[in-house]
Amino acid sequence: MDIERFETQLKFIYEIDKVKLVLRKSRLFDGSRQENDAEHSWTICIMAILLQEYSNTKIDILKVIKMLLIHDVVEIYAGDTFLYSKERDNAYINEEIAARKIFSLLPEDQFTEYLELWNEFELKETDEAKYASVFDRIEPILQNYKNEGYIWKEYNITKEQIMRKNEHIEEGSKKIWNYIKGIIDKSIELGYLKE
Amino acid sequence: MDIERFETQLKFIYEIDKVKLVLRKSRLFDGSRQENDAEHSWTICIMAILLQEYSNTKIDILKVIKMLLIHDVVEIYAGDTFLYSKERDNAYINEEIAARKIFSLLPEDQFTEYLELWNEFELKETDEAKYASVFDRIEPILQNYKNEGYIWKEYNITKEQIMRKNEHIEEGSKKIWNYIKGIIDKSIELGYLKE
Repeated sequence: MDIERFETQLKFIYEIDKVKLVLRKSRLFDGSRQENDAEHSWTICIMAILLQEYSNTKIDILKVIKMLLIHDVVEIYAGDTFLYSKERDNAYINEEIAARKIFSLLPEDQFTEYLELWNEFELKETDEAKYASVFDRIEPILQNYKNEGYIWKEYNITKEQIMRKNEHIEEGSKKIWNYIKGIIDKSIELGYLKE
Repeated sequence: MDIERFETQLKFIYEIDKVKLVLRKSRLFDGSRQENDAEHSWTICIMAILLQEYSNTKIDILKVIKMLLIHDVVEIYAGDTFLYSKERDNAYINEEIAARKIFSLLPEDQFTEYLELWNEFELKETDEAKYASVFDRIEPILQNYKNEGYIWKEYNITKEQIMRKNEHIEEGSKKIWNYIKGIIDKSIELGYLKE
């Protein structure tokens, strides 16, 4: 074993642990508290595996899981930006700097692999990235549906905002997007969300 | 899409979210607070992927990840039992009941798959289960090493206990076990752990 290489890898593990202290706007399904980035990543990995049958295309699920496991570690330096905020439009620039910084803790070969995976996820051009993104986006929608629109109400989110920011779910899974559109309409009926 | 099937799968996702409220004895690497089961699972999935080069054998890493993602959801019903407690010896019986209960929320085909995966992980007989178990065990050791033996001191844990309960790490990765033995000895030198 190359001890130096192993300890470099461990240092990365220790550094990304800080993502457990990065709180998202979204709350747990039961609404009891905000979710942190590590918890969010765990949930969407399980979703991606369990719901693979609804993918539009045959995908490399291991690649999807790798993307989902690490997609938010950049927020340790760049912070979490709310999907419906103005800051979100420029988030990519800061996050790309953060990605280079955090993945540079890894040995060279893994730095390249993970920076590429992170970029692939962000760009949403490949089938794997499109499919992975489905779960990054449906988790907060389902959380809000389950906890009676907690964050939607707090930030006066409208159906139009949700549709605009999430319609790309369809590119990863038409079936899931159809179901989610139904959840959005039901949320309006139930008063969780504004038209 | 079979809506009933999809909603059954979602119900499972909602139920396992409760694992975020199950606190482990172990604390984060920085020692700031206890870790919950979802956070623990996220970390060890990343470890298993990043450190795959140290596996004794060629393994099916996707199977390892599936095991690690769901291995602790039984603790929603069975609770977390500390590795070095008396209760640990009988934990399997309660956890097996809990596994049947929680995975039965899934559609029949996925119930079978995940109950088998959970059992495979617990029995530690296959290469995948042996490799997966490496990370379930080294995470708390490294956490204690990083946070100056926080839990080892609190519970008066000895080197002998750690060796006995963790020596099977060698069956998944001789290289990592050798490194960990060094960490244990260094922890004694530094006063984090008793001889």
